[in-house]
Amino acid sequence: MKNLLPAPLETLIEQFEKLPGIGKKSAQRLAFAVLRQPEEDARKFAGAIVETRENIRRCKICFNLTDGEICPVCADESRDRGTICVVEDPRYLIAIERTNEYTGLYHVLHGLISPLDGVGPESLYIKELLERVKGGDVREVIVATNANVEGEATSLYIGKLLAPLGVRVSRLAYGLPVGGDLEYADEVTILRAFSGRNLI
Amino acid sequence: MKNLLPAPLETLIEQFEKLPGIGKKSAQRLAFAVLRQPEEDARKFAGAIVETRENIRRCKICFNLTDGEICPVCADESRDRGTICVVEDPRYLIAIERTNEYTGLYHVLHGLISPLDGVGPESLYIKELLERVKGGDVREVIVATNANVEGEATSLYIGKLLAPLGVRVSRLAYGLPVGGDLEYADEVTILRAFSGRNLI
Repeated sequence: MKNLLPAPLETLIEQFEKLPGIGKKSAQRLAFAVLRQPEEDARKFAGAIVETRENIRRCKICFNLTDGEICPVCADESRDRGTICVVEDPRYLIAIERTNEYTGLYHVLHGLISPLDGVGPESLYIKELLERVKGGDVREVIVATNANVEGEATSLYIGKLLAPLGVRVSRLAYGLPVGGDLEYADEVTILRAFSGRNLI
Repeated sequence: MKNLLPAPLETLIEQFEKLPGIGKKSAQRLAFAVLRQPEEDARKFAGAIVETRENIRRCKICFNLTDGEICPVCADESRDRGTICVVEDPRYLIAIERTNEYTGLYHVLHGLISPLDGVGPESLYIKELLERVKGGDVREVIVATNANVEGEATSLYIGKLLAPLGVRVSRLAYGLPVGGDLEYADEVTILRAFSGRNLI
């Protein structure tokens, strides 16, 4: 097929296609939407991409995303410096912050241990976590990884690594989601709900 | 919730959210993907948005998208200038070109008549279609709109408008999709397949 679309539009479609979960058709639809947007929105969009890439780095303490040296959570004096919650990704940090209950600090790994994908502990920020725990007055490390193979492996590794330091290492409870129906829960979730059962 | 994400990233998420079919979660996922992309890809992405907005306009003849004055289809000397295929959107032009069978020209309306959305014939390029048919040696106008209410209304309107000019006005056949199953076809499609039946 000849080039039916002008080159910049083709490039835009290609770039949309490179994003996760966006196929050829969606990319086309999104590119056409950009074309129909008010000029200002499109300019803002392009500007945000450039700025995001240029100005966003990882917090020196917890590796959360920030446009300064230290992220807002680490900079917040009112937070409990004795607790560190370990998350895979800044997205999970946001999810936990949304509950408005957790008042400790975070440590963002930017990945999980996954030998199949060639990701070992050394390519995550696990060494830095060890330094943080050694250096400060941390009482508890809460590992909040997802309940999948990589999440389990990472949590076990961290547990073993921190054990000699005498710090409490805990893990989120896994079980039936609140509002969920036992009938529709998968077997592994049900097993986890059994093994984690509490006295009432 | 406080601003957990750096401002440029928040802006990027907002801009993704403005695109059709992208919700809060998807927008976040896409913005994080941009953050993980190679620098060059992100720069290309931003560049393509700006260029698309700045350099792409509508062909002077058929209103297809182009970065020149006239689109590649209209500029192609080998195409049959006696046939004009009327489409709602450049996406449909691409779909038809993919068949590699149609050799005539196009006319892109950039919308369909839809009184409910306040879109009348005057906000589409229907006047320009009339001029094209009046001005040249057009033998046939093929209306290739979708088989929905707006598509029907637009096709009827164009049919009536062009009737006095003595040009042949036709419409795509609607019926069972090839490879489709009669059992799963909706009633309207089956009705269209019946009324459009051909002798064998």
